[in-house]
Amino acid sequence: MLALIAGQGGLPLALAASLGAAGTPYRVYALEGFAPDLPQVTVFRVEALGRVVRDMRKAGITEVCFAGAMQRPKVEMGKLHPLSLPLVPRLMKVIGDGDDRLLREVIAIFEEAGLRVLGAHDIAPGLLAPKGALGDVAPSETLRAEAARGAEILRVTGPLDIGQGCVVAGGLCLAIETLPGTDAMLRFVAQTRPDPGPGGVLVKRAKPGQDLRIDMPAIGPDTVAAAQAAGLAGIVLQAGHILILDRDATRTAADAAGIAIWGVT
Amino acid sequence: MLALIAGQGGLPLALAASLGAAGTPYRVYALEGFAPDLPQVTVFRVEALGRVVRDMRKAGITEVCFAGAMQRPKVEMGKLHPLSLPLVPRLMKVIGDGDDRLLREVIAIFEEAGLRVLGAHDIAPGLLAPKGALGDVAPSETLRAEAARGAEILRVTGPLDIGQGCVVAGGLCLAIETLPGTDAMLRFVAQTRPDPGPGGVLVKRAKPGQDLRIDMPAIGPDTVAAAQAAGLAGIVLQAGHILILDRDATRTAADAAGIAIWGVT
Repeated sequence: MLALIAGQGGLPLALAASLGAAGTPYRVYALEGFAPDLPQVTVFRVEALGRVVRDMRKAGITEVCFAGAMQRPKVEMGKLHPLSLPLVPRLMKVIGDGDDRLLREVIAIFEEAGLRVLGAHDIAPGLLAPKGALGDVAPSETLRAEAARGAEILRVTGPLDIGQGCVVAGGLCLAIETLPGTDAMLRFVAQTRPDPGPGGVLVKRAKPGQDLRIDMPAIGPDTVAAAQAAGLAGIVLQAGHILILDRDATRTAADAAGIAIWGVT
Repeated sequence: MLALIAGQGGLPLALAASLGAAGTPYRVYALEGFAPDLPQVTVFRVEALGRVVRDMRKAGITEVCFAGAMQRPKVEMGKLHPLSLPLVPRLMKVIGDGDDRLLREVIAIFEEAGLRVLGAHDIAPGLLAPKGALGDVAPSETLRAEAARGAEILRVTGPLDIGQGCVVAGGLCLAIETLPGTDAMLRFVAQTRPDPGPGGVLVKRAKPGQDLRIDMPAIGPDTVAAAQAAGLAGIVLQAGHILILDRDATRTAADAAGIAIWGVT
């Protein structure tokens, strides 16, 4: 049996829909405060993590998939379940090393308990960005050059474990994605552009060597709206490494906004 | 005779005050739209650049210093002075390559005309950030570790010619400076922090290999206020590579805010 460990946003819903359509049984677990809008969610506090892993095993769960946005929850030491105690020093050790390192440790905890950790792309490969144009607007030569500059920026910043996106316009980098995420970055661009476009491209790529089972970058119709508000003319995605939530709505929104959206290797 | 090619912000004023105190004669030139609050400024449009360089020579100018913020002005081709025509293809060629490359070309144009280009630090070395604590608040071990992470981030991003600052808190990168500058970055942090501090550090460093004669990073009392609004606990500067405008007011503001401000190599 598969368990979705679900956070917020559209991804858990898209996965649930995909699993439902395929007739695959699954359960949904969620951290308190980040539960998705799905029925029959088992909510738990992070202090109970050790117990939850044991309970999953007892309930016949063999595979888990982390899906959707979760911020780091505050841990109240007084509420720790005894089974979580061995995990505290492990997680404390990596808590200052960036999200990637912390999430790899969380994966390891589940795997050591005998649970296989899958990525969203393992469950629903149809969500992955394809290569080539997604909509009707073809990217100009200028956009392609800006996309190449953005890809170079993300290749360099990737090992720093900072973020998975940037905005390039007129050959200049207007923003690099950090902890607050893509939408916050696009709002920053909308607020700070002296001359709000149209022009420039949002570049989304996974970090080089990133474990795609956790924190795979995702976009959707909201991303297109935010890119439009920022005056951008394009969105370029790393094919096979970015999830597109609601592809039809995303393509329709991009076409309506005159935004080129395409995948590259 | 020295000419300040002055933009906005506190730097041209600080240099004028420093030159005045030393009894050094100077003239002030400024791009239309970016003139500083100084008397007797010769304002010119970018289309007249070729003529301005010739006029400087005629007026006995031998040295120039670029000081203060200027955005890229719009060029109206119909207004180009004949002496500017040879500069157009040179500047167009590098206009998409980032600010550094463009500014190096501008420096080259002045130097080829026989004008020596000085940095603000050549004229007023007293403005440079010193090594060690600037104010009364000592940086904690946590702040020093965050400062080291920020320095590493800027060492990696430096060659990309993106910006000269970042914000690190709790081991995580909250923001990387891009075109809109330090204040815009700090406003972004203030807006997006889920838990606005206090904590975290603003890191300011020159880009590795940067020509300090143009676009040397600068901070001042306003930077301290913006860092305080973002909930930060420290500001760390690359000694000898950052200008501090109004050092007394900057130190007083940092002490009053309980912000550690210090220089490192």
